[in-house]
Amino acid sequence: MPSEKSLRTFAAHVIDHVDNEVVLRGWVHRLRVLANTAFVVVRDCTGAVQGVCDTPSFPGPHIKLDDTIELRGRVRKDSRAKGGCEIAIREIRLLNEAGHKLPFNSSGNIESVGQEARLEYRPLAARNDAIGNVFRIQALILHYFRAFLCKQHFTEIVTSKIVASGTEGGTNLFKIDYFDRVAYLAQSPQFYKEHGVAAFERVFETGHVFRAEPHASSRHLTEYYSLDLEMGFIDGPEDVIELERDLLCWVFEQLNQHHWDLLRQYRQAPLPSLRAAPVWEFHECLEMLGREYGTRHLCNDLDPEAERQLCALAHSRTGVAAAFVLGFPAAGRPFYSAPRGATGTVQSFDLLYEGLEITTGGQRLHTRAALESSLRSRGIDATGFDSHLRMFELGMPPHGGLAIGLERLTAQILGLQNVREAALYPRDRYRLHP
Amino acid sequence: MPSEKSLRTFAAHVIDHVDNEVVLRGWVHRLRVLANTAFVVVRDCTGAVQGVCDTPSFPGPHIKLDDTIELRGRVRKDSRAKGGCEIAIREIRLLNEAGHKLPFNSSGNIESVGQEARLEYRPLAARNDAIGNVFRIQALILHYFRAFLCKQHFTEIVTSKIVASGTEGGTNLFKIDYFDRVAYLAQSPQFYKEHGVAAFERVFETGHVFRAEPHASSRHLTEYYSLDLEMGFIDGPEDVIELERDLLCWVFEQLNQHHWDLLRQYRQAPLPSLRAAPVWEFHECLEMLGREYGTRHLCNDLDPEAERQLCALAHSRTGVAAAFVLGFPAAGRPFYSAPRGATGTVQSFDLLYEGLEITTGGQRLHTRAALESSLRSRGIDATGFDSHLRMFELGMPPHGGLAIGLERLTAQILGLQNVREAALYPRDRYRLHP
Repeated sequence: MPSEKSLRTFAAHVIDHVDNEVVLRGWVHRLRVLANTAFVVVRDCTGAVQGVCDTPSFPGPHIKLDDTIELRGRVRKDSRAKGGCEIAIREIRLLNEAGHKLPFNSSGNIESVGQEARLEYRPLAARNDAIGNVFRIQALILHYFRAFLCKQHFTEIVTSKIVASGTEGGTNLFKIDYFDRVAYLAQSPQFYKEHGVAAFERVFETGHVFRAEPHASSRHLTEYYSLDLEMGFIDGPEDVIELERDLLCWVFEQLNQHHWDLLRQYRQAPLPSLRAAPVWEFHECLEMLGREYGTRHLCNDLDPEAERQLCALAHSRTGVAAAFVLGFPAAGRPFYSAPRGATGTVQSFDLLYEGLEITTGGQRLHTRAALESSLRSRGIDATGFDSHLRMFELGMPPHGGLAIGLERLTAQILGLQNVREAALYPRDRYRLHP
Repeated sequence: MPSEKSLRTFAAHVIDHVDNEVVLRGWVHRLRVLANTAFVVVRDCTGAVQGVCDTPSFPGPHIKLDDTIELRGRVRKDSRAKGGCEIAIREIRLLNEAGHKLPFNSSGNIESVGQEARLEYRPLAARNDAIGNVFRIQALILHYFRAFLCKQHFTEIVTSKIVASGTEGGTNLFKIDYFDRVAYLAQSPQFYKEHGVAAFERVFETGHVFRAEPHASSRHLTEYYSLDLEMGFIDGPEDVIELERDLLCWVFEQLNQHHWDLLRQYRQAPLPSLRAAPVWEFHECLEMLGREYGTRHLCNDLDPEAERQLCALAHSRTGVAAAFVLGFPAAGRPFYSAPRGATGTVQSFDLLYEGLEITTGGQRLHTRAALESSLRSRGIDATGFDSHLRMFELGMPPHGGLAIGLERLTAQILGLQNVREAALYPRDRYRLHP
């Protein structure tokens, strides 16, 4: 309980209380104790402010970095201080002390802390802006993603993550003991968002997806956060591509305009406009890769090197290291992909950004007959999909959509080398903890 | 492909194109074919608009309710028409027809359709406003929940749903085959959001939680969507209660002011203010229940009947059928609950609303020593919690938080009888489908 009950002031609002007493609560962010004067920088969820007092009469217990404290004192204007003011400390109370042997301090240089320690001590690492701002920016991406789609008449949906079968033929599924039955973790909300189109025309979902992928590369997680949308009454995948272009352009603009203070920590230049990002046919991409890089082994899909090379080509031609690749061979894409003419390719696209695929999307088949025929041609038994296929007889418009991996988008925007750095608690083949 | 490529107009924007030709795309919502004149109401994600043409020269193929169509024609002002205009149809194209034997039509009276059929044919049911607006309002609750907390300096976090152990002692957990190991589905983001406090001070998460509860009552789901928040530097659980009061008051105000057109379908009166909702001690509640209803069997927790009775009491005394109940006996609450004085009760509360518990929250223990002692006193081995307990040595402020069940809140706001009606795809002991 506080020694005197009083309203707490946030660090960012201290400047509104010049010449009055305030009560701050937060972490000891910096601490400098000289012979005569002591400086205590307190940090809370709105920022930091400096308190000053006489060292010989330090008005509180022994404190150290990362302790949580309450600091009481009078605000005085000081044009030299960050934020334009500082606090003449009258009293400091210790709310809860940090351990005496922390592996590192939150205000130190986090670059020198290894990836394992950063994960093992997530709260301490994330209290450092270099790590914490990754997740603040991630939260902003989420916010602007949803805000854009709401303005475009999309309805947010919440769909089940426990499913009776997979959307893509049963591979890479995590199995759950569901009472006396077997169930699976959803590897995508694909079917549900298509059903959502039949209900609401335009839907989005932001949520976890689960892939039992045995490899643990710098670009794969077994659990990630997917920004999914699906929209009805499209003419083709180009409509989805143009929506994504508008969406990402707007999100990037908001980040540049309103959050440059966060972005600048990771980037020298503002985020680029995707206006000029080209839309390339898959076969064109193979031709370019062969011509420019001598690549000949690709067939149904790109590989990480090809993704980097195509972004480099896009950058040299348009100034933006991003490209939409459209018209993948059917063999590499799921059964619900709509055909692109009669060439064995489908209306399916990827968005490559700064060398990495961050989106998969496309136009889907929208009649039951076409879906059944596609399943048959792939040798998949359609009876397992019966309840899904019935939804296509309820008034299903032509439709398409996409999914953006939140961690990948965050990593690419901020230039992080490993997608794990953009997940608070990454999961992979070997990591279940913390 | 459209016969003439042209920009589609949304139903809600048709009024901006009087005397011009527009192209609408949507579902056949109503269809009336008289001897001379045919009326076709097309519905899309923004609303509905009526088209009119001569029956003898009907400019398109045979269409029926719930087919998806494109309708082309000239807009004319008509003050009698809903929306102030109608369309003189020049051409109708069928985009994808609905089945000939639908179990029901989306524009019919959904009241007569059983609960099973509504779930089995979710897209068709949700195309009906009586069902669809439940989920539109749910999306708005989500939107306003996040918007309020962002203004209050909360950071949205995304935490793992695949965990190595449970937060409440290992019961009611779904087991996952995680490669060569066993993992579990998170039954709450409790530990992660507490760690989030140590990082960001104020955090929230909106996401799925999973409970292997064997009962299938009208109030339980095995998977539900939890609105979680946690905040640092509180003085007591009252701070969390007052934040929730402010939060729900604001969310309700937004719904009343901006979305009464949706709410009125379910409610006669606007949503009440929770300003007057009382905060009652648990022991007071038992006394009142004994005095007013002769209830004597309750000990460590309330039961559904007690929740209804307390809301009735709150309503008769304050005009609002809601009450915060604070100070539950420790025995009924998790080990991390902070003690409330020395009376064997904890700083833990529920919010009861319209007869149902929709929130559990409280102040948590914030020192490692107190947590270890609490685990010991419950006979739980603390070593299983070691990695969690270590986070309490990194600078953990006094903190508390709460979790609101989104489906329960939606159901109570709209007067739905079963929480399943507020889940697009409910899951329980017996239901894994659709």
